[in-house]
Amino acid sequence: MKSSVPLLDIITRYIVKRKGKKIRPMFVFFSAELYGGITNSTYRAATLIELLHTATLVHDDVVDDSNKRRSFFSINALWKNKIAVLVGDFLLSRGLLVAMNNNDYELLKIVSNSVKEMSEGELLQIEKARNLDIEESIYFEIIRKKTASLIASCCACGASSAGANKTIVEKMYKFGETAGIAFQLKDDLFDYEKNMETGKPHGIDIKEHKMTLPLIYMLCTMKYSDRRRVINIVKNHSDNHEKVADVIKLVNESGGIPYTKQKMLEYRQSAIGMLHEFPENTARESLEKLIQFIVERKK
Amino acid sequence: MKSSVPLLDIITRYIVKRKGKKIRPMFVFFSAELYGGITNSTYRAATLIELLHTATLVHDDVVDDSNKRRSFFSINALWKNKIAVLVGDFLLSRGLLVAMNNNDYELLKIVSNSVKEMSEGELLQIEKARNLDIEESIYFEIIRKKTASLIASCCACGASSAGANKTIVEKMYKFGETAGIAFQLKDDLFDYEKNMETGKPHGIDIKEHKMTLPLIYMLCTMKYSDRRRVINIVKNHSDNHEKVADVIKLVNESGGIPYTKQKMLEYRQSAIGMLHEFPENTARESLEKLIQFIVERKK
Repeated sequence: MKSSVPLLDIITRYIVKRKGKKIRPMFVFFSAELYGGITNSTYRAATLIELLHTATLVHDDVVDDSNKRRSFFSINALWKNKIAVLVGDFLLSRGLLVAMNNNDYELLKIVSNSVKEMSEGELLQIEKARNLDIEESIYFEIIRKKTASLIASCCACGASSAGANKTIVEKMYKFGETAGIAFQLKDDLFDYEKNMETGKPHGIDIKEHKMTLPLIYMLCTMKYSDRRRVINIVKNHSDNHEKVADVIKLVNESGGIPYTKQKMLEYRQSAIGMLHEFPENTARESLEKLIQFIVERKK
Repeated sequence: MKSSVPLLDIITRYIVKRKGKKIRPMFVFFSAELYGGITNSTYRAATLIELLHTATLVHDDVVDDSNKRRSFFSINALWKNKIAVLVGDFLLSRGLLVAMNNNDYELLKIVSNSVKEMSEGELLQIEKARNLDIEESIYFEIIRKKTASLIASCCACGASSAGANKTIVEKMYKFGETAGIAFQLKDDLFDYEKNMETGKPHGIDIKEHKMTLPLIYMLCTMKYSDRRRVINIVKNHSDNHEKVADVIKLVNESGGIPYTKQKMLEYRQSAIGMLHEFPENTARESLEKLIQFIVERKK
């Protein structure tokens, strides 16, 4: 990521320090091992996807205007929106060039499609947040696009980089997509769980009018007048901490949490079922453990 | 640009209405005609580059926090930063996919490199705006990266799409780069010219601490105490309209404008000189007229 711009180098060094879980590269490497082993192209796929993921996190800092991300200050708060947009664009182009200069065209096709799906998914979420849409099928469409499509690409790129054929690459895509939906369901559950630092749930999704499954389930099972009251809070009083806390309490009492957990476990099971049709080796075991981690993780 | 997201479709329809000069596609088409004629791949190159250019304009709306762009309200002001970032990402990925799905790998390599250069150039400009750097060579480095690299890509992609060989594609890149520098010099001159609506110069660059050539020339020729005074205004009082107007007046008296015009004409001449080494046909005449337009245009 070294560039000829000193300011950019300061920022990329800073980004490298914000270590994430690196779940996406793990999907890439295990998927390659599953079908023939890691190649140089696998490393480039993992690099491309992690750079792209980082670019979207940097752009998200603009998007959500959040002041913190994983306890470090966000790029946005420190260097303002304008720089965050440009750094995101730079990271994305660096990722593309790594693959482009090595003729990894299959990887590029898979990943470019995810870039499109991710931006569509985020925009669909914003649109639905405005109408406070509570259709479960649309919720699943949003998380499939905004989150699952990139994890799907990890698995497809990993297999493709190891030389797997088109049918297998497509199966791996489907497997990653299913695991990615479980991943996002877990993320959406976090918003209703007690925070380790404050002892209170975040409620960030509600504050941003994001209709996630626990809330959608509750609203769908409520009687009309109660539903109107909750929707009114989300729509007009989402900056009121007490009212948001009330909604969180209601969701916890509604059965929305166990319902979402149940769905998450179904997707986990479905992903593991697909996995068992793949060749049996240590990489398959690793992928199974990774999926287990996804639904059990504490952050 | 049709998508499955209604909100996105509303925005892209809105973007299509904001017609620009379409200078970049013209460079692509004329460069293809110059070397064998327009192919389907030429259309995709023009599409890719115009989508990419539009994506950077949409991201610029975030970047500059400007409320207006070409008299329409910016996407940013109407739909906020978050959507502008996502729409920019969507347009960029759509452009990449058009080329990717048609195996236009040479075009993609050329264009991805420009994406990187453009973000580096913008970041370098921000960095230098902070220090109020007045080195002429750095100014030219910034405009080469942020503006000229994409116009260079237009000419290289045009020729490449028509089947030109590597040597020619590189020559066309150099030609476009030279024309692109003249283009940006013209843009930077606009900031010091009387606005057609208000009768006053914009002075936006000064307000954003952008050190463009007219100002750099003046500062380099001033005696120390005067230079300190002007730098103090740009640094600490760029929100004061009267003081900015004073600086614009000083620049106009300093010889910075004719100096910049002189440089612009030198780059124009250099580009035309390169052009005259290319085959003589109607496309070459069109390119010469396009370069003439660039330095004479009124907006």
